[in-house]
Amino acid sequence: MDKAELQAFMESHFPQVAEDFRIEKLDVGEITVRLHVSEKNLRPGGTVSGPSMFSLADVSIYLAILAMIGPQALAVTTNCAIDFMRKPEAGADLIGTARILKLGRALAVGDVLIRSDGNPQPVARAGLTYSIPPKSG
Amino acid sequence: MDKAELQAFMESHFPQVAEDFRIEKLDVGEITVRLHVSEKNLRPGGTVSGPSMFSLADVSIYLAILAMIGPQALAVTTNCAIDFMRKPEAGADLIGTARILKLGRALAVGDVLIRSDGNPQPVARAGLTYSIPPKSG
Amino acid sequence: MDKAELQAFMESHFPQVAEDFRIEKLDVGEITVRLHVSEKNLRPGGTVSGPSMFSLADVSIYLAILAMIGPQALAVTTNCAIDFMRKPEAGADLIGTARILKLGRALAVGDVLIRSDGNPQPVARAGLTYSIPPKSG
Amino acid sequence: MDKAELQAFMESHFPQVAEDFRIEKLDVGEITVRLHVSEKNLRPGGTVSGPSMFSLADVSIYLAILAMIGPQALAVTTNCAIDFMRKPEAGADLIGTARILKLGRALAVGDVLIRSDGNPQPVARAGLTYSIPPKSG
Repeated sequence: MDKAELQAFMESHFPQVAEDFRIEKLDVGEITVRLHVSEKNLRPGGTVSGPSMFSLADVSIYLAILAMIGPQALAVTTNCAIDFMRKPEAGADLIGTARILKLGRALAVGDVLIRSDGNPQPVARAGLTYSIPPKSG
Repeated sequence: MDKAELQAFMESHFPQVAEDFRIEKLDVGEITVRLHVSEKNLRPGGTVSGPSMFSLADVSIYLAILAMIGPQALAVTTNCAIDFMRKPEAGADLIGTARILKLGRALAVGDVLIRSDGNPQPVARAGLTYSIPPKSG
Repeated sequence: MDKAELQAFMESHFPQVAEDFRIEKLDVGEITVRLHVSEKNLRPGGTVSGPSMFSLADVSIYLAILAMIGPQALAVTTNCAIDFMRKPEAGADLIGTARILKLGRALAVGDVLIRSDGNPQPVARAGLTYSIPPKSG
Repeated sequence: MDKAELQAFMESHFPQVAEDFRIEKLDVGEITVRLHVSEKNLRPGGTVSGPSMFSLADVSIYLAILAMIGPQALAVTTNCAIDFMRKPEAGADLIGTARILKLGRALAVGDVLIRSDGNPQPVARAGLTYSIPPKSG
């Protein structure tokens, strides 16, 4: 799947969240995704909430996997380990850069680095595992 | 802090999310928190989203720590490792049971087991670390 | 498999490490394993090394899974998240208490609490995922 | 600290394990470390054990931190999340490539990619947090 197909897939399958995310760049096994930060993502002081960062990490890996295996709405996260390292900048979008490290028959593993737009220092880092359902006939 | 104080603290400091959570039970180093599942927490098929489960884990540990050290809005999550084990039941609230395993001067560590209300099988399990800011004068 | 069968399995399949571990207690989905701490497990100051604690966590979950599914030497760890919370006591064995939270067809998830023998405070906590190979005809 | 100083520090402070590891490359915030795989690191079938991979990840981040802050034997691992993705090759050394993502006053965070020597595919990936003791005097 290419950028347009992935974005369309997300809009049809995850209408609740699709408008929050935009795919910036897509290569084989790598993806860059923007989280449009809005009021609902914020915590006191203007910082972006932990669940929003988790969400960006999760969506980035999911889309990078789909780009490689095609539309599999049923791929599910089985594990995520996330380090929160710095406070995201108030008012800036978040940029997640993800790479797939293993794409197996049943499991896929990737990691994500998250930055505030315009600032090179990472605010969070996550490793995720997805379970890929067996292909039905 | 007791249940009422914690609930009030959450409402004044985190008005965006406070109404989603209710403290069900509080003991020394242990807490049970309910996530009122609503439309915004759902994914296709009626299952509760990963970020919602992360959020419940995060809030549960945060409140369990505050119960022990008093109102410290600035305690921040530094790490979370979460295993998603089963699909939450459609339409059921989520119940998080958290315990604090270490409460140090600078770091607190706890873990959380999450279940769908009315079902004993865990849907997710998480371990979290919080950084506790030094007490100012 | 019961305690004696598990201990025998370990000795025949993992002779390099079997003598370091002793199963103290075994219930359905729960196990207590002792790591006999010796010179090779120690770091300066007499504390037990991180890899030794990782090893105890890993073995405990592995044995708890085998107790439920039978001898499957090929079950492999896919993920471990471990929190080191306190310095283990110098000269004391380590006791790992593990429980299986999910035993699926392809994946098993469990967690482990590690203590120094004779001291109730946890020194480490870990969550692990194992991949279980499909049964061959 | 440069390569020679780090290697010497390891030999004087961790004589039990220093001979197993060799620093291959050192840059600011990045390090490449080789684990000389020997009999004691192996499991049935010739594969390298999980604790050995954990150990390489742990040592790599530790040395990368020391290179930046100087000899601090007391820096301790507080958390490690490790994904085991492929079976290491029988008889090959392991190569860990680590980078420091955050070096704070009290906490340092880094991640490590582990490969079998001569094979570009990662066998494991880990994220680690170290607690850095306050400078005395």
